[in-house]
Amino acid sequence: MEGQGVGYIHKGAVAVSGSTIAAVGPTDEVSRDFPAHRTIDGTGKIVMPGLIDAHMHTGLTLVRGVAQDMNDWMQKGIWPFAKHLTTEDKKLGSMVNILEGIQAGTTTFGDYNDHMLDLAENYEQTGARAVVTEMVNEMPETIVDLEVGDLYPFDPSVGEEKKRRNEQLLEKYPFTEKGRITALSGPQGPDMMSLELLKEMQHLANIHHTKLHMHVAQGDREIGQMEKRYGKRSIPFLEEHGFLNNRLLAVHLTEATDEETAAVARSGAGMIYCAGSIGIIDGLVPPMLTFLENGGRACLGSDQAPGNNCNQMFNEMKMAAILNKVKRKDPSVFNATLAIRSATIESARVLGLEDQIGSLRRGKKADLIVIDAEQPSLFPVLTDPVRNIVPNLVYSARGHEVEMSIIDGRIVMEDRNVVTVDVKTAVKAGQKAADALVQRASADLKQADSDVVKMVKQGLL
Amino acid sequence: MEGQGVGYIHKGAVAVSGSTIAAVGPTDEVSRDFPAHRTIDGTGKIVMPGLIDAHMHTGLTLVRGVAQDMNDWMQKGIWPFAKHLTTEDKKLGSMVNILEGIQAGTTTFGDYNDHMLDLAENYEQTGARAVVTEMVNEMPETIVDLEVGDLYPFDPSVGEEKKRRNEQLLEKYPFTEKGRITALSGPQGPDMMSLELLKEMQHLANIHHTKLHMHVAQGDREIGQMEKRYGKRSIPFLEEHGFLNNRLLAVHLTEATDEETAAVARSGAGMIYCAGSIGIIDGLVPPMLTFLENGGRACLGSDQAPGNNCNQMFNEMKMAAILNKVKRKDPSVFNATLAIRSATIESARVLGLEDQIGSLRRGKKADLIVIDAEQPSLFPVLTDPVRNIVPNLVYSARGHEVEMSIIDGRIVMEDRNVVTVDVKTAVKAGQKAADALVQRASADLKQADSDVVKMVKQGLL
Repeated sequence: MEGQGVGYIHKGAVAVSGSTIAAVGPTDEVSRDFPAHRTIDGTGKIVMPGLIDAHMHTGLTLVRGVAQDMNDWMQKGIWPFAKHLTTEDKKLGSMVNILEGIQAGTTTFGDYNDHMLDLAENYEQTGARAVVTEMVNEMPETIVDLEVGDLYPFDPSVGEEKKRRNEQLLEKYPFTEKGRITALSGPQGPDMMSLELLKEMQHLANIHHTKLHMHVAQGDREIGQMEKRYGKRSIPFLEEHGFLNNRLLAVHLTEATDEETAAVARSGAGMIYCAGSIGIIDGLVPPMLTFLENGGRACLGSDQAPGNNCNQMFNEMKMAAILNKVKRKDPSVFNATLAIRSATIESARVLGLEDQIGSLRRGKKADLIVIDAEQPSLFPVLTDPVRNIVPNLVYSARGHEVEMSIIDGRIVMEDRNVVTVDVKTAVKAGQKAADALVQRASADLKQADSDVVKMVKQGLL
Repeated sequence: MEGQGVGYIHKGAVAVSGSTIAAVGPTDEVSRDFPAHRTIDGTGKIVMPGLIDAHMHTGLTLVRGVAQDMNDWMQKGIWPFAKHLTTEDKKLGSMVNILEGIQAGTTTFGDYNDHMLDLAENYEQTGARAVVTEMVNEMPETIVDLEVGDLYPFDPSVGEEKKRRNEQLLEKYPFTEKGRITALSGPQGPDMMSLELLKEMQHLANIHHTKLHMHVAQGDREIGQMEKRYGKRSIPFLEEHGFLNNRLLAVHLTEATDEETAAVARSGAGMIYCAGSIGIIDGLVPPMLTFLENGGRACLGSDQAPGNNCNQMFNEMKMAAILNKVKRKDPSVFNATLAIRSATIESARVLGLEDQIGSLRRGKKADLIVIDAEQPSLFPVLTDPVRNIVPNLVYSARGHEVEMSIIDGRIVMEDRNVVTVDVKTAVKAGQKAADALVQRASADLKQADSDVVKMVKQGLL
């Protein structure tokens, strides 16, 4: 992942010592210099950096599949459910979502939820790396009863409480210590809190030397709120108030104009592009290529289960490449190399962890995955003069080809079995919570004017 | 799959007798009426019709991953390889491609290759259902040395020989007998043979009471050939000469105008849309929705490995839905129900096999798949008042959730192991052939002006 390409060592080996990569090189050299307690035979395998999912909301997994193929996704699809989700529900769903990612090669999860301190326990337990963000807004719970288009009311006591939780998270998982779990500051969006709280969230990021992880221009819904409240679109507003800088992780930029996209890119802010999610929810392709063309740094995220509907980076790599080809009507405009870099080294850079993860290099954290190259979906393997490994990982692999995952030097999945958490038990516990949730939400769901509920009634789903 | 929806039976069962479905209904009724030699417990599983891949070229699998992310895909990417592919190479690659599909729930393969009689042996061996087509054109082998844009030369002796092979295929696998393998007539495209041979291919379809399976308006390359040769675009040309009718399976229609698309749809011809392939190769979204809006019948196919690059219908369902949402900038325009129907009942209808396959109904062939609904990617399962099974199959499943496949009443895959053919042996044999192929093609590859070869040279791949 150094330079512009992906790097390739035929018959190579990786030496791991503790949580760190001790060496990467030809097998004979590495095995000579590093006698090991355990040697894992990689014959017929691909060893590569673990995948980094820069933006997701694992707390919403219990409502996967309830809100796609419709308009007003958030207000009519998700909220009637979400108001009934307890923190325990979120945690149980989150666990299954994390396991889904691990099973498909994700080693770092950029998770963004309320009550993140509770959800972070899942990362303690699974052994996955996480960049966690508390989702802070100033909106009272009655927000879910608003009509589409109404201006959101703000409640400073709500904002204060949520900011306090973000502070606790930052204290428990300081970014500066570069541990396995690190925390960011998380204003949910410029439309979802007062300018005053937004500035406090930036101050929080400054004093903790961390990033500001925020949805920006994520939909016409947001732009509408900003214009109603401030008479300005999101990005000019953020620029005016000093939020465009290299501390900002701008998520989505779905509604950003070319000019606005360029302004964010040139500011040094990072962009996180959620290809599958925005494709399904909005039928749109955010301006990642424009962002790159303006010298910006961008990477990929899988967003939330009710909306994408999956959370794994093989899907995001493929979607990002194909959707951008189609956007520009040019098959060469987003290639497999860019896709795989955007889920590894570029994600690490955007998250500010490029010295820790994102490539296999001596001194970096030992986050790596082992992929069975003898699966039919990766067949055949050609190396010279044409090398087809990266294209087939991006365009053909489905995720189940990942058979081992090592995170922070520890084997978390082996022979496709997650060894830190029992998957079946997690699924059973989550399903029980989902069944109870549906009972509680049933009346609200029937009342909500959701296209999905209508389709079920009509026997179409 | 009856009516417009997908149908749903909670705690249901399917009784299979020989190669046929004897009953579908509530478990207590079915198990009372049909005492079985073997009962397969489907608790926590989804049982659904096997997926139908209406259009693919399994013979090209040995060159998967050599030609994406570039322009002039066919001439600069594929042909330098393809000229060195032997029939045995094609057969070995085809086998792995079929196994890839079976592992992801494909039970019927719409395979389209030259030397199909040889490749069809793979379907005999795997036990998969197949609709096979001999790829007939009139182009001499020197075609691969043409410059991009040159008019293709025709050689009647080539056409004669290929047509003869299609006749043999039709005799061995008559469509009228509705066996597990049935044959179609396969003119490769209106640009790739004389009008005379095209008419003979239609005559062949007529006398064998089968379909005419043809690429139509598949790219600007084809339209350019047609305009140069006849002064006409493909579809007006085909209309003028009587090819637009319910015998035609029109593949791609990538370059069809709205008016041309409507003409094909109204004629009763079927359309096969290859979402992943055309997205990757051309960066385009063919007019499937326009075709449907004009009363046409359309379905999905995965096309060839060097170009898609995968061959499995979970990918096609998702790609078709999302790419069309993006094309129309509307998330509701192509929903999960349409996607799953387009890979089952609609494929069956387009192929003329709706009385045999495509839904679970008494009297139809027992082609069905069993999916583990307790995999994290399908979590959670909600049934009332919102049902999320179909959306999560389309937008979240990766294919490995399919654990059993029954084709023509026979178990072909159980516990994810294909029982008719040893997958590892097939991959090994194919890899050996791929290694030898690369040796033979090496000089041509280096000479070809392929972007992919350049990227490898530059260390970018």
